[in-house]
Amino acid sequence: MKRTDYAGNITESYLGQEVTVKGWVAKRRDLGGLIFIDLRDREGIVQIVVNPETQAQELVDLADSVRNEYVLSVTGKVIERASKNDKMKTGQIEIEATAIEVLASSKTTPFEIKDDVEVLDDTRLKYRYLDLRRPEMLANITMRHGVTKAIRSYLDNTGFIDVETPFLNKSTPEGARDYLVPSRVNKGEFYALPQSPQLMKQLLMTAGLDRYYQIVKCFRDEDLRGDRQPEFTQVDLETSFLSEEEIQELTEGLIAKVMKDVKGIDVTLPFPRMSWDEAMNSYGSDKPDTRFELLLQDLTEIAHKVEGFDVFSKAEAVKAIVVKGAADKYSRKQIDKLTEQAKQNGAKGLAFVKYDEGEFTGGVAKFMPGIADELIARLGLKNKDLVLFVADTLEVANNALGALRLTVGKQQGLIDYRQFNFLWVIDWPMFEWSEEEGRYMSAHHPFTLPTKETEGELVAGDLSRVRAHAYDIVLNGYELGGGSLRIHTRELQEQMLTALGFSLDDANEQFGFLLEALDYGFPPHGGLALGLDRFVMLLAGKDNIREVIAFPKNNKATDPMTDAPSPVADKQLEELSIKVEQAD
Amino acid sequence: MKRTDYAGNITESYLGQEVTVKGWVAKRRDLGGLIFIDLRDREGIVQIVVNPETQAQELVDLADSVRNEYVLSVTGKVIERASKNDKMKTGQIEIEATAIEVLASSKTTPFEIKDDVEVLDDTRLKYRYLDLRRPEMLANITMRHGVTKAIRSYLDNTGFIDVETPFLNKSTPEGARDYLVPSRVNKGEFYALPQSPQLMKQLLMTAGLDRYYQIVKCFRDEDLRGDRQPEFTQVDLETSFLSEEEIQELTEGLIAKVMKDVKGIDVTLPFPRMSWDEAMNSYGSDKPDTRFELLLQDLTEIAHKVEGFDVFSKAEAVKAIVVKGAADKYSRKQIDKLTEQAKQNGAKGLAFVKYDEGEFTGGVAKFMPGIADELIARLGLKNKDLVLFVADTLEVANNALGALRLTVGKQQGLIDYRQFNFLWVIDWPMFEWSEEEGRYMSAHHPFTLPTKETEGELVAGDLSRVRAHAYDIVLNGYELGGGSLRIHTRELQEQMLTALGFSLDDANEQFGFLLEALDYGFPPHGGLALGLDRFVMLLAGKDNIREVIAFPKNNKATDPMTDAPSPVADKQLEELSIKVEQAD
Repeated sequence: MKRTDYAGNITESYLGQEVTVKGWVAKRRDLGGLIFIDLRDREGIVQIVVNPETQAQELVDLADSVRNEYVLSVTGKVIERASKNDKMKTGQIEIEATAIEVLASSKTTPFEIKDDVEVLDDTRLKYRYLDLRRPEMLANITMRHGVTKAIRSYLDNTGFIDVETPFLNKSTPEGARDYLVPSRVNKGEFYALPQSPQLMKQLLMTAGLDRYYQIVKCFRDEDLRGDRQPEFTQVDLETSFLSEEEIQELTEGLIAKVMKDVKGIDVTLPFPRMSWDEAMNSYGSDKPDTRFELLLQDLTEIAHKVEGFDVFSKAEAVKAIVVKGAADKYSRKQIDKLTEQAKQNGAKGLAFVKYDEGEFTGGVAKFMPGIADELIARLGLKNKDLVLFVADTLEVANNALGALRLTVGKQQGLIDYRQFNFLWVIDWPMFEWSEEEGRYMSAHHPFTLPTKETEGELVAGDLSRVRAHAYDIVLNGYELGGGSLRIHTRELQEQMLTALGFSLDDANEQFGFLLEALDYGFPPHGGLALGLDRFVMLLAGKDNIREVIAFPKNNKATDPMTDAPSPVADKQLEELSIKVEQAD
Repeated sequence: MKRTDYAGNITESYLGQEVTVKGWVAKRRDLGGLIFIDLRDREGIVQIVVNPETQAQELVDLADSVRNEYVLSVTGKVIERASKNDKMKTGQIEIEATAIEVLASSKTTPFEIKDDVEVLDDTRLKYRYLDLRRPEMLANITMRHGVTKAIRSYLDNTGFIDVETPFLNKSTPEGARDYLVPSRVNKGEFYALPQSPQLMKQLLMTAGLDRYYQIVKCFRDEDLRGDRQPEFTQVDLETSFLSEEEIQELTEGLIAKVMKDVKGIDVTLPFPRMSWDEAMNSYGSDKPDTRFELLLQDLTEIAHKVEGFDVFSKAEAVKAIVVKGAADKYSRKQIDKLTEQAKQNGAKGLAFVKYDEGEFTGGVAKFMPGIADELIARLGLKNKDLVLFVADTLEVANNALGALRLTVGKQQGLIDYRQFNFLWVIDWPMFEWSEEEGRYMSAHHPFTLPTKETEGELVAGDLSRVRAHAYDIVLNGYELGGGSLRIHTRELQEQMLTALGFSLDDANEQFGFLLEALDYGFPPHGGLALGLDRFVMLLAGKDNIREVIAFPKNNKATDPMTDAPSPVADKQLEELSIKVEQAD
């Protein structure tokens, strides 16, 4: 029998008609001499009823024998339900079965197929095909398609051309660690899976494509965190001849379309812009969560007046956040926990005072008298306020307080989780100092265009002063994506690579094809990439991208379902001329 | 200055207006005291004119200094052209420049940027970004986007959900050779890049997605031919609860939409169906080019009556094609060439006769007398017909004549290249005998559903008799794609793997997750995959998929532009615990 419609679509409009539906048994029960089966498919659940008084014994026996997750084809007449369920789309009707076919049986599933079921992460992944049957997971995966559909629709309508770039690329040491693919034909050589199609999309600009996009898998062999996966999906775009603002405007249109199509929300355009300096100084983060205030306050000048407390008076920076009315809410123990967090973020410690009725108590209260009035005025202190200070380098003070701000914001219930706060962070530094590497590294990547005013420093030497035509798009404290204008002349690109410590030989070895391309009429260009997984995760209200990926890896980069990665046959390695080194 | 419109879009509607265009210098010439520049962008070419009588010397000097492939921003007034060019979209107007800015200069390009330029393949690939500037290549890449847009539109509107499946998978030895990716976290283990998302899409069916699609990169580490690449793109789809015919009907709708949107062609639906037996017997191919006849004729019975010529009388099969009126067109030398081709396809030789005025001449004419009348009647011979015979096993006769049929069809101009002949080849055998492996192998893959009537042979033993619910879609002699219904019970899947020589241990080791999934209510399902590269290639009228891929590899699986694959740093290999084995 051909299916009439999805089970979840059988509503009053089918009343009196004979229909056939196909799906999974969500529940079977006997009630008042009747057998009821909830049949589930991707659109929802419909109730089947088998009436022993009117149906053949064979059908009754069959209905009696089915168990949860059996796959059935059911034919019957749509009738009005005796006891209606207004919460269900199909709740006004039921199907009186006249024929049932068991298309597949099922053993008892390792966990129940319903939302909010308690299962170990790895069990969910091992039986991902069952996990995906849960309505919530199905909704996430379906929403993901809704997002890509909206993105494609917008980009197709604004002149972008979808172009596929290669997955088997050249390995370049700059940036994150590559996944390598040994070549069989070219023994001893390797392809690398793309960390992003950055250079390919730039080459498409000099090819004249003008507007390129791709929704594409990228790969980074880094240690995994909650919102990282070895493979992730990027909405990648690039344009020629546009300004930073024009690219941002296009991106805003794209995001507005997604928000409208997927969430039914009209976002206000343009999104706010915030300089990187402002973000770091006021939010202690290059991806500020602007759903709440609790801004970082600079008290350096005041703190330098404190006597007998070098921690404050001699610090490069003293900054603070004021937790309004929270003085009694934080015990010593809780403040110790915050101190621990501050230390994890590089601070030597966390100072605090509580304010009430003109008095400071606790923590560093004894050092306050000399600066009390100034501090109260500067911070606008009210009774029961708690002040948390970090005295350190400016960078450490910002980072530590930025992290505390998020923790305290959550603890104090300051965040409105219904809000979607988009924000551009602009005016980025070109480089950041890497303690680990002992050198300046690109804050974005080595193809980012420095500003005209500061590009001279590439050669003159103070790399900390070089600013980039770079912009990140931030949503609720997450970096949703980032982009920049790119360098489009060989001279500047060579200066950039030299500034990053490349010898001319190395630069040519690794990026020679780009440098050569810059010789042949390379247009001004720029673009952006959005993290699709993260975007969908935030739209779905989740805090782990695994919830919006059909078959993700666990945090050991393995798939408990297929057991990938796994050992391979010796013959396979021989053909590739590679050997696994035994551990000592 | 902001661009008003693409250069190629500046037509009469802009007459009298000031516009700004940005693009590449396609040509610069002095004529009658004026300087003309053809400015090219992705939409076409517009003519710029600089008039020394009205413009500042500075502008004139600048216009004089630009060379081919410089990138310019040009502002000026759109005026009517003195000498119109009706062949160009912009041929009625020109832009009288009032300002020109050189956005990028260019060295002389290694080849001229125009269609039909003679360049070595590897030079084109080394400078692919220049190659892509050629209007024909740009059109191919743009058409490719048109095709995927049409496909997505159709599938989105017929209830399909686009789901991304993983690129880092488990390696399975069945099928083609995998590309491997060493794992750093799990030393000594490897991921494999997907040859197709076959099992993942089947799991999505048991997850309840009902209709899945994806346009996705797949990878096979095989030796390369003209229309193969290490990575290729597949339009992949899968459905639950549908019959073979319903899946074919959906696919036909998909193809009709592409043909209409991209080529403006209304194809006739449904496409013809041909059994695999009929395809092999009449066309000598499982992917018949039905744009011309020249069918294979079975003469076995007649040939067995020939006396004194064991080659015919004792052959398992004697088959022939009749080249109408071509007797005088084929010299001995040309027939030798055809014989060579027949031998390359496994035949021991090629026999021929020419027919004229009731007489046979040449080749095996002397053996004809006894069967002449019967042969003439059977083949409907007319004057000047050439008959080419292969006497061998049926399989060899079919293959060899199938190949000759294509060669002769081309030589005789029998093919109408404007036609798009779609065809379903159905009723496939489940297995084909591999001489190389000395065993039966899956004609499609081990998850294909055998027919009810023949599935018993999986256990009973004659694998040659098992038929599959499989169907290939063929276009103009190319396999465009293939699909099947899939096995959805554990018992049958285990029988299939056993028939293919898997021990139960091996089966569980490699496909355990699928076998286990079959225990939990796995719905009947089936699907199809189309080769996107090949489809676009045929739509573009090309004979190599490289012409429709932005950055393909050459036939050594390398990219002459980036030099991928390449040696990598020792540190990278150490981290992966692998070592390259030195050649002896």
